[in-house]
Amino acid sequence: MIYLDNSATTKPFPEVVDSFVTVATKYFGNPSSLHELGMKAEQLLTQSREQIAKSLGVKPSEIIFTSGGTEANNFAIKGVALTYRHRGNHIITTAIEHPSITEPCRQLEELGFDVSYLSVDKTGRVNIDELVKTIRDDTILVSIMHVNNEIGSIQPIEEIGQLLTQYPKILFHVDHVQGIGKVPLQFHKAHIDLCTMSAHKFHGLRGAGILYVRDGVRLSPLLAGGGQEMQRRSGTENVAAIVAMAKALRMSLEKYRERIAYLWDVKKTWIRELQAIPDIQVNTPLEHSAPHIINFSLNGLKSEVFVHELAKQDIFVSTTSACSSKKKAPSKTLLAMGADQKRAESAVRVSLSFENTLEEIPIAIRAMKEAIQKLQEVTR
Amino acid sequence: MIYLDNSATTKPFPEVVDSFVTVATKYFGNPSSLHELGMKAEQLLTQSREQIAKSLGVKPSEIIFTSGGTEANNFAIKGVALTYRHRGNHIITTAIEHPSITEPCRQLEELGFDVSYLSVDKTGRVNIDELVKTIRDDTILVSIMHVNNEIGSIQPIEEIGQLLTQYPKILFHVDHVQGIGKVPLQFHKAHIDLCTMSAHKFHGLRGAGILYVRDGVRLSPLLAGGGQEMQRRSGTENVAAIVAMAKALRMSLEKYRERIAYLWDVKKTWIRELQAIPDIQVNTPLEHSAPHIINFSLNGLKSEVFVHELAKQDIFVSTTSACSSKKKAPSKTLLAMGADQKRAESAVRVSLSFENTLEEIPIAIRAMKEAIQKLQEVTR
Ligand SMILES: Cc1ncc(COP(=O)(O)O)c(C=O)c1O
Ligand SMILES: Cc1ncc(COP(=O)(O)O)c(C=O)c1O
Repeated sequence: MIYLDNSATTKPFPEVVDSFVTVATKYFGNPSSLHELGMKAEQLLTQSREQIAKSLGVKPSEIIFTSGGTEANNFAIKGVALTYRHRGNHIITTAIEHPSITEPCRQLEELGFDVSYLSVDKTGRVNIDELVKTIRDDTILVSIMHVNNEIGSIQPIEEIGQLLTQYPKILFHVDHVQGIGKVPLQFHKAHIDLCTMSAHKFHGLRGAGILYVRDGVRLSPLLAGGGQEMQRRSGTENVAAIVAMAKALRMSLEKYRERIAYLWDVKKTWIRELQAIPDIQVNTPLEHSAPHIINFSLNGLKSEVFVHELAKQDIFVSTTSACSSKKKAPSKTLLAMGADQKRAESAVRVSLSFENTLEEIPIAIRAMKEAIQKLQEVTR
Repeated sequence: MIYLDNSATTKPFPEVVDSFVTVATKYFGNPSSLHELGMKAEQLLTQSREQIAKSLGVKPSEIIFTSGGTEANNFAIKGVALTYRHRGNHIITTAIEHPSITEPCRQLEELGFDVSYLSVDKTGRVNIDELVKTIRDDTILVSIMHVNNEIGSIQPIEEIGQLLTQYPKILFHVDHVQGIGKVPLQFHKAHIDLCTMSAHKFHGLRGAGILYVRDGVRLSPLLAGGGQEMQRRSGTENVAAIVAMAKALRMSLEKYRERIAYLWDVKKTWIRELQAIPDIQVNTPLEHSAPHIINFSLNGLKSEVFVHELAKQDIFVSTTSACSSKKKAPSKTLLAMGADQKRAESAVRVSLSFENTLEEIPIAIRAMKEAIQKLQEVTR
């Protein structure tokens, strides 16, 4: 199997699954229970929080565990909107965010909020001047993703954070789901107030995510109830998945240190090989892009059929983002970058992890050439 | 170990953990991915949905998977309030609900909704006449738990549902987290529109829950985004935990059929033995109560210390509900039932599963008597 769909989800590390099983079976107590079984579970939760906070360079009290990236994004957007409504009702985001940002924004528009969507240039990046012009007196939140999930472009988060320090009433949220473990981001240096991460994108298990909330930022709970997570996110804590996530993060950051140069080699080789195929146009820019995402178009050929052809050879790629792939809509990010309909409709995404190798490339490239030939024959 | 805190959380069945591991490692694909790995994950999701729907006597399209009971309760309450606001802004619930109902209600009160809390009688049950009197023209939702998590009282859900058919504009939500697998409830017969369940309370794993939403009921998503769960609950699906939950439900319902009479024996023996201890007052009513919860008070002795004393002997009980136990507040349910402060403050909960046995009782009772004696000596 050559798995090239790591931006949709990653295969959990075996050690991570082992940790999950140990905690779920041996330390299954409810962390809120007063007895020793509960206390042990609470200790594990505290340790995980401390470990994750340390890895991210923040305080344990700033780490809120959620069920995943979508919950963290909804919590950030809706939480800020409802808590800071008295300050204003204007939100700024971008045209290329994940639906777990744009859909909550749409819901807020229905409630009377005003949302501005920043455009991106040909390389999938926002423009700081446009941001400055979009800021209003009643702007309460700027939410911008770090790494785009469809084409891998990196936004100038530090520059934006620096700029926003001039507007102390505006909170800054970053969707870091695709960036964590692949593209470093210093939360303090970038003046980030809120930041989303999701375990299953870095070889953790589904059911756990993180919302970083800078000390001092208040948030109306999305999941209200028993008062877990320092009164901010209720629900019996998924201790096993959280311990597993702490381990996955530690392991991912280790892999980053050991293998980031190699991953860049793999990505560059991929791009070189893809560029040599006549019917392929590479969409991912070489500058300001993440080491693990390569997007290309098939010159109008049906990308869905292409995905299935490759899957027959146990090679797994995707069309656009996983959650949009069944809607068969053209890539939103490519359209925002100014690509034409044909190019946006025939996009394919290869997304890597530190497990992918150079050796896979010739095998996959050969299969891709064959698939293209087959598609062309059918189309002709 | 004698584990008597099953209402806080249950130990997952080993077979359930095995299922989780198989799915998380072999079928780790994102169910939204177009390729075969994704399709296999989607098949597992569909099968689980069908199996759960069948067990509950409802349609697969009526089963929405959530991250747990708290999310399902927040989704039901906030979803109905925001979607049906044009009909009115009055909500009816009870004085003894879990915080994952009362806290969302409190948040809605801040947004201008009006919430009425039904009282309960000495046995912890609501009164139908009071409900009828509380219903107004602008009532949009009645939310009543099936089995109370602190004392185990059962509400007359069928009778309430029957009554509510006279008010077609009112939706009926039931928190069935403590009831499922222990006290049968026929959703259709009880005219339930929305119903909450949580995997970790029936030997499943944390990270999965269910909101039953009757066909035709609309709900503004709490977690908006990629459009998973039929556009109702976004986020990459926790397939492994959902498959594990389907198995846990099937196994729990089997255990119910095989062992419910035995569980009643266990509960009745517990009550008999507890009643024979001079310093104990049993709070759980004999009528209309669930087979697995027994609440009693220690005549003013500190229940927290009692819990720790028993834990030393590997016997695990709790004070009130897990999520309230650290707040050291008196039992909300007991106060609502008219118990005095002393009784409400010294409450202890024994909560059983089908794994508990008659043989455990004399051992636990002896330990309880010793703990009481020790506490009395310290107090004197
Ligand atoms: C950029 C981005 N944000 C948010 C999410 C949502 O994360 P999750 O699947 O954990 O809900 C994803 C992935 O689906 C993503 O790629
Ligand atoms: C009656 C009741 N409702 C809801 C919940 C919340 O469920 P969860 O822990 O899955 O969020 C619980 C348990 O904590 C409960 O006992």
